[in-house]
Amino acid sequence: MSELVLHEYAASGNCYKIRLTAALAGKALVRREYDIMQGETRTADFLAKVNANGRIPVLQVGERFMPESNAACVYVADGTALIPADPFDRADMLRWMFWEQYNHEPNIATVRFWMGWIGEANLNDLQRALLPGKCEAGTAALRLMDEHLAGREWFVGDGPTLADICLYAYTHVAEEGGFALAPWPAVRGWIARVEALKGYIPITA
Amino acid sequence: MSELVLHEYAASGNCYKIRLTAALAGKALVRREYDIMQGETRTADFLAKVNANGRIPVLQVGERFMPESNAACVYVADGTALIPADPFDRADMLRWMFWEQYNHEPNIATVRFWMGWIGEANLNDLQRALLPGKCEAGTAALRLMDEHLAGREWFVGDGPTLADICLYAYTHVAEEGGFALAPWPAVRGWIARVEALKGYIPITA
Repeated sequence: MSELVLHEYAASGNCYKIRLTAALAGKALVRREYDIMQGETRTADFLAKVNANGRIPVLQVGERFMPESNAACVYVADGTALIPADPFDRADMLRWMFWEQYNHEPNIATVRFWMGWIGEANLNDLQRALLPGKCEAGTAALRLMDEHLAGREWFVGDGPTLADICLYAYTHVAEEGGFALAPWPAVRGWIARVEALKGYIPITA
Repeated sequence: MSELVLHEYAASGNCYKIRLTAALAGKALVRREYDIMQGETRTADFLAKVNANGRIPVLQVGERFMPESNAACVYVADGTALIPADPFDRADMLRWMFWEQYNHEPNIATVRFWMGWIGEANLNDLQRALLPGKCEAGTAALRLMDEHLAGREWFVGDGPTLADICLYAYTHVAEEGGFALAPWPAVRGWIARVEALKGYIPITA
C-alpha cells in the first residue's frame, strides 16, 4: 500500500475518525495540519491539488486524493474486521455512516464548531436562526442512538465496525456543543466500550 | 436472497436511486408507497416497525430493515460491476455518495421539494432565509460535478458505478427546483450516458 497522508485539522471529529480507524487497524498515517480558521483549505493551491470542495479531511494515497471522512475510513479499514464480511451487515454499517453525515454531523458537529470555535456571540443571524433546530435535531440523533444501543454492544453485528468509529468521533465530544450525554446511558456505555478497544487513541493524540 | 421490499414515496429521488440500481442490476423489487405529504412515515406503526428515523426509503430484506438510500443501493448492487473491485475505486465511489448526501441532496433535493411540493408561497420564515444559501450551494455542487466530469465519462474509473446512479437521481430533475443544467455541458453529457444504460428506467416508471 502507498504511504497514507492525512490532510487535516486535528480538532475536527471528521479528521479524528480517520486517525482512530488507522490506529485500530494498525496502519501508519503521515499528518499534515491546516488551519481552517485561517482559510488554509480555501487557497487556490489547496483547491487545485487536494480538494476542489475546499474541505478537510482528505486522505492522500500516493498521488491520489480522497475527500469525505467516512469514505477514507473505508479505504483505511479495507480487509480488516472493522468492515463486516456479511453483505447485509456491511451495507448496514454504511447505513449508520450515511445517517451520521446527514442527521448527526450537521447538527452535533456544527453546533460544537459554532459554540466552541466561532463563539455564540459571534454567530450571524442565519446561524442564530438555525441553532434551536440543530440543537433539537442533535438531541433527536442522540436519542435514536440510545434506543438502538439499548440491549446491544455495537451498532452493527457483534463487534466494533466503522459505524461505531464514525459515530463515536463527534458523539464523545457532544458536550462541547452543549449536548448532554447524561440522559443516554446506552450511549455512555458504548462510548466506554469504544475507549477500551485495543489501539484506541483519543482525539487529542 | 430474500425478497426485497422498497418502502417508498415514488417521486423521491432517494427512492428512485434504489429502483434504478435494482433495474440496472437485474434485481426484482416489491414496492410499498407511503404518502409523505400526509405524514404516513411518521405514524407510531411506521416508526416502530420500519424506521425509527421516520424517513423513506427503507429497504426491507426478509425481516430486516435498512434505511438510508445510498446504503440500500450498496446492498442491492452487491456483487455487480456497479461496485468497483479495486479498493481505492470502491472507497472513491463511496466518497461521491457521501458527498451527494452532504453537499448535493440537502441543497438540490431540498429546494426541489420546497419549490415543487410545498410551494414557494408556503415556505416558512426559516426556509425562506435558507433558500438563497441552498440555491448557491446547489449550483456550486453542479459546478464541482461539471469540473470533475470534464474529460471523463463516469465519476469513478471507466464505467458506471453507484456514484453515478446516486448523483443522477436528483441531478436530472434539478430544474424542478430552479437549478439550470444548461451551463454544465459535462453534466448533461453524463446524464445522457446514464439514460442510455441497458436496463435504465425513468423516475416516473
